[in-house]
Amino acid sequence: MIKPIQLRQPGVIEFGVGRRETLRDHLSGVTRILAVVDPAVRPAIDDVAQIIESTGRVVEWITEVVPEPPIHEVERLRSRVRAFAPDCVIGIGGGSAIDLAKILSILSTTDEPVSGILGIDLVTTRTPRLIALPTTSGTGSEVTPIAVLTDTDAALKKGVVSRYLIPDVAIVDPALTVSSPAPVTASTGIDALTHCIEAFTNVHAHPAVDIYALEGIRLIAGHVARAVADGTDLTARSAMALGSLYGGLCLGPVNTAAVHALAYPLGGSFKVPHGVANSMLLPHVMRFNLPACALRYVRVAEAMGVIAPGIVLESDSRSKIEQAASAAVDRVVELSRECGIPRSLTEFGVRQADIDTMAKAAVLVTRLMNNNPRTMSAAQASEIYRQAL
Amino acid sequence: MIKPIQLRQPGVIEFGVGRRETLRDHLSGVTRILAVVDPAVRPAIDDVAQIIESTGRVVEWITEVVPEPPIHEVERLRSRVRAFAPDCVIGIGGGSAIDLAKILSILSTTDEPVSGILGIDLVTTRTPRLIALPTTSGTGSEVTPIAVLTDTDAALKKGVVSRYLIPDVAIVDPALTVSSPAPVTASTGIDALTHCIEAFTNVHAHPAVDIYALEGIRLIAGHVARAVADGTDLTARSAMALGSLYGGLCLGPVNTAAVHALAYPLGGSFKVPHGVANSMLLPHVMRFNLPACALRYVRVAEAMGVIAPGIVLESDSRSKIEQAASAAVDRVVELSRECGIPRSLTEFGVRQADIDTMAKAAVLVTRLMNNNPRTMSAAQASEIYRQAL
Repeated sequence: MIKPIQLRQPGVIEFGVGRRETLRDHLSGVTRILAVVDPAVRPAIDDVAQIIESTGRVVEWITEVVPEPPIHEVERLRSRVRAFAPDCVIGIGGGSAIDLAKILSILSTTDEPVSGILGIDLVTTRTPRLIALPTTSGTGSEVTPIAVLTDTDAALKKGVVSRYLIPDVAIVDPALTVSSPAPVTASTGIDALTHCIEAFTNVHAHPAVDIYALEGIRLIAGHVARAVADGTDLTARSAMALGSLYGGLCLGPVNTAAVHALAYPLGGSFKVPHGVANSMLLPHVMRFNLPACALRYVRVAEAMGVIAPGIVLESDSRSKIEQAASAAVDRVVELSRECGIPRSLTEFGVRQADIDTMAKAAVLVTRLMNNNPRTMSAAQASEIYRQAL
Repeated sequence: MIKPIQLRQPGVIEFGVGRRETLRDHLSGVTRILAVVDPAVRPAIDDVAQIIESTGRVVEWITEVVPEPPIHEVERLRSRVRAFAPDCVIGIGGGSAIDLAKILSILSTTDEPVSGILGIDLVTTRTPRLIALPTTSGTGSEVTPIAVLTDTDAALKKGVVSRYLIPDVAIVDPALTVSSPAPVTASTGIDALTHCIEAFTNVHAHPAVDIYALEGIRLIAGHVARAVADGTDLTARSAMALGSLYGGLCLGPVNTAAVHALAYPLGGSFKVPHGVANSMLLPHVMRFNLPACALRYVRVAEAMGVIAPGIVLESDSRSKIEQAASAAVDRVVELSRECGIPRSLTEFGVRQADIDTMAKAAVLVTRLMNNNPRTMSAAQASEIYRQAL
């Protein structure tokens, strides 16, 4: 019997090249727009800015966007946002800009400190309309209930998870991702692939989410290298944008697992960008998980197009299944290489001596570790970090 | 390049046995509930009625639900609904109860006659929260922007299509479908299959909708006969409920085609229930369409499990492809037989002499006929009716 599930997503998703034009329609009825935009993408979103300005609404631009926004930076913006009192908040950029927009949409009507909403379901309401326009294909934040912040005191990334963080409208225009540089396209793309793979092999995997995960894997595996090689290739950019959106749809109801847990300390202590950390860890964690979810990896390999569909069955021998499953891991390694993902944590200043501390921190991210198909001890986490050194 | 699309659906979908309990949460904050329930299912939804009554809110029950509600009946309810002034409307039942709830949620705040909103995008707003709990697996109305009414003067079914008709919350609890009698399970089930097949072979087919269509085909083809044979089989009921929901997700952005167009006059003039009409026409229309979409039918046959995935390729000979495609048609015929779908329009009083008039009316349903993969003349429509006689 199909197990129960709650599925939440934006009531409207506008997808496709040119759909950024629909932003105009989605601003009807609002009067005060807070637009949060990553300054790095600002030159590439001129026409979107033009749409916002041409509405004649009062607009406040927030450009203080840094990766995984530090909590104290967010708090610094609160009074400005409360004073502006937006009835619409738009996030334009990668995951960090959209996540910041999400948090500011909440803070605009409350004095609750950010520390009071960190965690799951602690946000009680949201008043402004929330619209997201991603300029990278990676986090899927445009459809998720999640915002990731940095607790600089604890040197840890922390998440706010709430239904109120799901945008009302996601406008996913692949043309907005054209300016994303190759290394960002690579790491965010493999990050999106990680969302799909970790959801599909999750202990909470669900058929209603599997369809997104498998289609996301198919789209991303088939196009990420092309998008990295030629950022203007709109066919590849479209496939990546849809695949990333599907990765995002996996995150709310099922979420990720060990890769993301292991990435947390890398982001917190070594400032390894989220997508890069996930991309570097993914093949190692897959190899660790393989014995626990070999049949699922077979289907991942099918979706990646590296084995023909239907040739490996549940009734086949263990060794045949595991061999087919490892084709999925091999393909991920290959893809990372084709995309030029950094090969070693050493490049980010991680040393042998740091590993055990990181491993202890990672296994404490039980919210994600508990989703992993194979239980991971701190010693096993250390071993995975060592493989990625 | 993936073509642009707008995807709309309820922001919340609660799926699974027992999820009707969540209705309580979704009623938080409302004060006046208009509950529209099909009297035929009333005995089977005692615990849902209990949840609604136990909220302590003011509740008005509407039980005047008839199949494809006649417009004059809907108008008769208007003053009562306006006087009650609900801030929440709940539809509980098959497509007709949910469609009536949708229309009443609109009428509750407007004096616009129903005739003024028939058609596409003529509804301008909706105020009450709208919640749908289906008790059949067929129309998918719980997630669609569509309500079907009957214009008794013109003896024609007419549709209201608007984003405002998409419920805010769809609660799809397969346990609510257990009381659905075998013939209803059969015809509504094949109707849902029709939604998926007509969306997948549609001229507007889209990859973001194909994933719902194929998964719906897989679920329905695999479980409809089981659900008909044993209505208490919750595994089969769950699969049908999810398959039907996916059929509904196909309807907004892509919609149906010739089967539904040909069914319109059968519903309007001969009172053939919507699901029955579609079920009887589906194999004949598929056979007609086959030359125009053979490769797509191959994928339908794969999803139905009647041919192994990947054994027929685009590069294969035309005859090999068409032979594999016809396996899909044969399977639909077989399924209809296993489910005890009526075999002949004659049973509903349709005679040879009626056919040409019906065919002329059907080809005028251009909104759907234009979606069909193969152009259909009135003469060809007549021929299909004759095959179904």
